[in-house]
Amino acid sequence: MNWQPPIIPPLARQLESELRYSIDRKTKPLGSLGRLEELALQLGLIQQTTAPVLRAPTMVVFAGDHGLAAEGVSPYPAEVTAQMVLNYLAGGAAINVFARQHDLTLKVVDAGVAADLPSHPALLALKVRRGTRNALREPALTPAEVSLCLERGAQVVADLVSAGTNALLLGEMGIGNTSAAALLHSALLGLPLDDCVGRGAGHDDAGLARKRSILARVQARHAGTTGTPMAVLAAYGGCEIAMLTGAILAAAAARMVIVIDGFIVTSALLVAAKLQPVVLDYCVYAHTSSESGHARALAALKARPLLDLGLRLGEGTGAALAWPLIVSAAGFLREMATFDSAGVSERGRGDA
Amino acid sequence: MNWQPPIIPPLARQLESELRYSIDRKTKPLGSLGRLEELALQLGLIQQTTAPVLRAPTMVVFAGDHGLAAEGVSPYPAEVTAQMVLNYLAGGAAINVFARQHDLTLKVVDAGVAADLPSHPALLALKVRRGTRNALREPALTPAEVSLCLERGAQVVADLVSAGTNALLLGEMGIGNTSAAALLHSALLGLPLDDCVGRGAGHDDAGLARKRSILARVQARHAGTTGTPMAVLAAYGGCEIAMLTGAILAAAAARMVIVIDGFIVTSALLVAAKLQPVVLDYCVYAHTSSESGHARALAALKARPLLDLGLRLGEGTGAALAWPLIVSAAGFLREMATFDSAGVSERGRGDA
Repeated sequence: MNWQPPIIPPLARQLESELRYSIDRKTKPLGSLGRLEELALQLGLIQQTTAPVLRAPTMVVFAGDHGLAAEGVSPYPAEVTAQMVLNYLAGGAAINVFARQHDLTLKVVDAGVAADLPSHPALLALKVRRGTRNALREPALTPAEVSLCLERGAQVVADLVSAGTNALLLGEMGIGNTSAAALLHSALLGLPLDDCVGRGAGHDDAGLARKRSILARVQARHAGTTGTPMAVLAAYGGCEIAMLTGAILAAAAARMVIVIDGFIVTSALLVAAKLQPVVLDYCVYAHTSSESGHARALAALKARPLLDLGLRLGEGTGAALAWPLIVSAAGFLREMATFDSAGVSERGRGDA
Repeated sequence: MNWQPPIIPPLARQLESELRYSIDRKTKPLGSLGRLEELALQLGLIQQTTAPVLRAPTMVVFAGDHGLAAEGVSPYPAEVTAQMVLNYLAGGAAINVFARQHDLTLKVVDAGVAADLPSHPALLALKVRRGTRNALREPALTPAEVSLCLERGAQVVADLVSAGTNALLLGEMGIGNTSAAALLHSALLGLPLDDCVGRGAGHDDAGLARKRSILARVQARHAGTTGTPMAVLAAYGGCEIAMLTGAILAAAAARMVIVIDGFIVTSALLVAAKLQPVVLDYCVYAHTSSESGHARALAALKARPLLDLGLRLGEGTGAALAWPLIVSAAGFLREMATFDSAGVSERGRGDA
């Protein structure tokens, strides 16, 4: 219970006019790089420079199991969480393919997988418990476990900062975690639960109806005990989501660029933003997931993701796919010639 | 006048079920990579393999001037075309930054720049004339010049094929070429001209109104003489657009993956598709430009671009920014483990 949210510096805005000038002097029509120009401005403000550099970008996939999976909220069996962690360690999952493509260091965190996992250089063994408790019957986590998750998420980031990383990409794995995330979205955004529950890994209509019905019972079970962000995490879990929250807050405190993936990572961000709203200044939104409810949360955050490709895989795959666009935004700001340096004529006075 | 459109093979569909099976056996929920799965299927069909490989991808930027620029259809002076070509050769433009980032070979083609350009290893000197004629007064190109452009565009591709390239990214530069492209879009899609005319490099409202008025006069000048795709190219130009058309057709004939950039490259594709509709099977649409009219053309082509970032820079920048997503689609199909190979459990029977 010692964890306290870190102090996060708001973005210093003094550099904004210089950054806008720098962007506008590049050899291109004003505003013609669209969303990449806003992104370049954000990267410049985060790093306080007109020549942002993204160093040792690292994808961290937090994995954990959910006691609620016993109720059948996912079409996949719970052992898939551990099996997929092994798949990451063997290099065969989608996130491995995309991380290799983009030279992202990949770390997998055992936040709370309900299985023993082998030691491996890419695996951080930070298990808080073997899966959360079944939230239909009791709180998923104790307050002490929530604090431990938040601390460990922060520690993962502290180690990356020490290693020179200034860009953090976030992913997750956990059978049942769209259920926990839906409950978090509903609680933290004040939205009706049904607006936050989606097909997850692929429910048909009957499976979706069953999931909605179970989650309504879970929500009713915890009514009145979810008044704070920490209490929401305790009620619904999971370990991987709470660690993500700790990681996000620590990364913002360290002035890192934080790449937010889909529905579940966003649920961790919602907790973080309740605790420290300024965290949002450091976040880049990778994509709009096809998991229903994500678009609503993004709208509430006034977030405009870079991609909209109908992704709903998790693992941080959306963040990895969006990553090269972030590199491009930093790159054009750092490397493009200006009208003066390239000797290119500017637009005429007046429009003609 | 010897140019004839090449024979383009339709995609052989026999492999489709095997490709879909291969995509579905990967360790991910069915369909969870969204649009990347459709793209992987297309790449597999183009290359007729379940392990597509993109080799020596090359960005070709076709540059040309427009006689119509003398009427003030662009806010930038015409000499910017040549100045930007020099900027490409010096490595300072946006397309240079993105091509370096993605290891794309960059070639610049002088299709019809109204200036003498220095020799340079990255510059292909294929000038057909020093800018098109002023389409307000006469046809921009003669039929013989159109043929020459188409032939030279095809030759550029033939040389790339000989060098082992199987993926072609397309870009363009030419002050005034959103005007020619708007006239092409209107003629080839049967759309009202005003629906096809946008702000180009950045007209204000007065500039846009002036551009619309001039282009209406150009269109009226050529009424009745634009009955064939070749006649449309002759009426409006430009050299770079006609060369793009030749390159697109030749690339499809060679079964290359063709990455279509924005409004102007799309105008060249519209000509190509009128001549040989099957060309569309080989095209990947990079982005929806914020140049008004592009979205309409994409809808007419039933195209769903990968990105929607408010780009309107040209140079092939949208194609370059979308490129890593195409690499990702090939990569997941080629490299991901299957449920069997990774020992991951599948979803339960029925949904629960």
